[in-house]
Amino acid sequence: MTKVRGLAALSKGAPFTRFDFERRELGEHDVLLDIVFAGICHSDIHQIREEWGPALFPMVPGHEIAGIVREIGSSVTKFSVGDHIGVGVFIDSCRQCQPCKDGLEQYCDQGMTGTYNTLERDGKTVAMGGYSNVFVVNENYAVTIPKSMPLDGVAPLLCAGITLYSPLKHWKAGKGTRVAVMGLGGLGHMGVKFAHALGAHVTVISHSPGKRDAALAMGADEFICVKDPKDLKPFARSFDLILNTVSAQIDINDYLATLSIDGTLVVIGLPGAPYPVHAGSLLDGRKSLAGSMIGGIAQTQEMINFSAEHGIVSDVEVIAADYVDKAYERTVASDVKYRFVIDVSTI
Amino acid sequence: MTKVRGLAALSKGAPFTRFDFERRELGEHDVLLDIVFAGICHSDIHQIREEWGPALFPMVPGHEIAGIVREIGSSVTKFSVGDHIGVGVFIDSCRQCQPCKDGLEQYCDQGMTGTYNTLERDGKTVAMGGYSNVFVVNENYAVTIPKSMPLDGVAPLLCAGITLYSPLKHWKAGKGTRVAVMGLGGLGHMGVKFAHALGAHVTVISHSPGKRDAALAMGADEFICVKDPKDLKPFARSFDLILNTVSAQIDINDYLATLSIDGTLVVIGLPGAPYPVHAGSLLDGRKSLAGSMIGGIAQTQEMINFSAEHGIVSDVEVIAADYVDKAYERTVASDVKYRFVIDVSTI
Repeated sequence: MTKVRGLAALSKGAPFTRFDFERRELGEHDVLLDIVFAGICHSDIHQIREEWGPALFPMVPGHEIAGIVREIGSSVTKFSVGDHIGVGVFIDSCRQCQPCKDGLEQYCDQGMTGTYNTLERDGKTVAMGGYSNVFVVNENYAVTIPKSMPLDGVAPLLCAGITLYSPLKHWKAGKGTRVAVMGLGGLGHMGVKFAHALGAHVTVISHSPGKRDAALAMGADEFICVKDPKDLKPFARSFDLILNTVSAQIDINDYLATLSIDGTLVVIGLPGAPYPVHAGSLLDGRKSLAGSMIGGIAQTQEMINFSAEHGIVSDVEVIAADYVDKAYERTVASDVKYRFVIDVSTI
Repeated sequence: MTKVRGLAALSKGAPFTRFDFERRELGEHDVLLDIVFAGICHSDIHQIREEWGPALFPMVPGHEIAGIVREIGSSVTKFSVGDHIGVGVFIDSCRQCQPCKDGLEQYCDQGMTGTYNTLERDGKTVAMGGYSNVFVVNENYAVTIPKSMPLDGVAPLLCAGITLYSPLKHWKAGKGTRVAVMGLGGLGHMGVKFAHALGAHVTVISHSPGKRDAALAMGADEFICVKDPKDLKPFARSFDLILNTVSAQIDINDYLATLSIDGTLVVIGLPGAPYPVHAGSLLDGRKSLAGSMIGGIAQTQEMINFSAEHGIVSDVEVIAADYVDKAYERTVASDVKYRFVIDVSTI
């Protein structure tokens, strides 16, 4: 067993406290990594606060993990000691079902095993996440990070990055396609960078006029400030693909109207309330409202390699362990450009 | 001008009465047809009753029109006198926009011109539909019906048929795909016939256990009777494509759960209330909720040819003009197998 120090919430919504626990012995297919940076995802906050249902406490969140391999199991072939690697939103899946075989482990028929706030596949061990200094993971559920990349800016790619990259690839964003990104936050800013690098014409749709310059600097071609639904009227049938990163309540029908014929609006977050969708919003133009959830391991590696090639990382604010509670408040207030990353050496 | 006798509602929800009016002089690209049969579509009822908003009265409904060409304009090349032809849900469109050029006239940027209850493109003439004995239409907005096909069974193909055929083709139903059709009525029974003929594995999902035998006889491979949402539980991730022909309020999320990964549920009707769609219903499996509205002229011709080749027609109950009011009541009560068709000689 390996002793680990993490940051835990001991109960629902509790402030973080340093917390000692143990990780499993290194199995033959496991790697042990020293975590260097762990990103803060809004879903960490949802889970700590039980906004998505009952949670397991003490909880050590964190599923945007970047670190350095310290030790490898006897049968590990994918990694060597000293490699920079990343772990994302899940650490296991059934490995037998068709989605797992197809590299879509996130849609495993038995359910992916989350990186924290769940039981591991043994049905007993509570998974503890990345707000900690050591991690142990099966080699098939980690990806290689080229050493040319800064680990702080890479950490958020493991969730925010792949969450945007995957639908852009699936719905074939590229030259000649018109992509809109709703919201310019931790998720949205990754969408702009990837869509631009893929060659698409990129529009940011935001409620905040102050985000225009940042959007354009990241690669957006256009910026639409929406203070009122009527601001979208001039953009009827304008976009082939819209990625909705906004968790606030909006009338999705206003945005469906901006899709071109055969266009798709992809939801990638989980707002609490359902979207009231008018059938007419979909019928007139054969439009689709779709969902996408992170990405599989192979595609996550592809995304990391693509990022390295195009010089893409997340824009981050690196913080110390003692600042995490405050960072949560600021994340909820959308007061971060654009992702907090914990320097785990401060735990 | 050509004198016509039709069946009209003189005001909202009024019973039908015989109504004399005139059709335009034959233009050089027009054809004049003697209507033989006109189908009754549920959308006729919605419009007569102003359930879709204010309507134009007197209204002669009908957009499932099958007839025989009596006269052709001087420049007509597509049809000859004596041809059997059909007219569907629209009689014109702008002919200039990209959707029109792409054969997607139903999604014309300026709006298709409906077959009735709208102004024609001159902005003055009220379009009068198919519950009448003569029709005049531009040749580009009519299709050829092979003389081997019975005109009564063909009439509903012009709306109900193409409405189901088009999404089946667009989402590539065929050998190896699992298609579910929700509801076995005027629309649904066409979906079963087409999906079966295309080689798909077809499941009918219905609230009526009594429809099992008919569904199987039409080509369905399976029948699921849903009395309660839990009846759908065993069918999680079962279907690649679901066509929803049900206009009653249902929880669409229960049905989205039966989609396989990357599956699509296509809405083809217009229920009054919006669907409350949970983002999670779409995210877990990269699913889509889409819409589809009838089909373009070229695809309508393709559908007619496909139907001729596979011996497909609508199952119809032919009625006389005096029975239309009663037929409306029975249509609303889903008491028809599966489409009423008016013998317009009785008008």
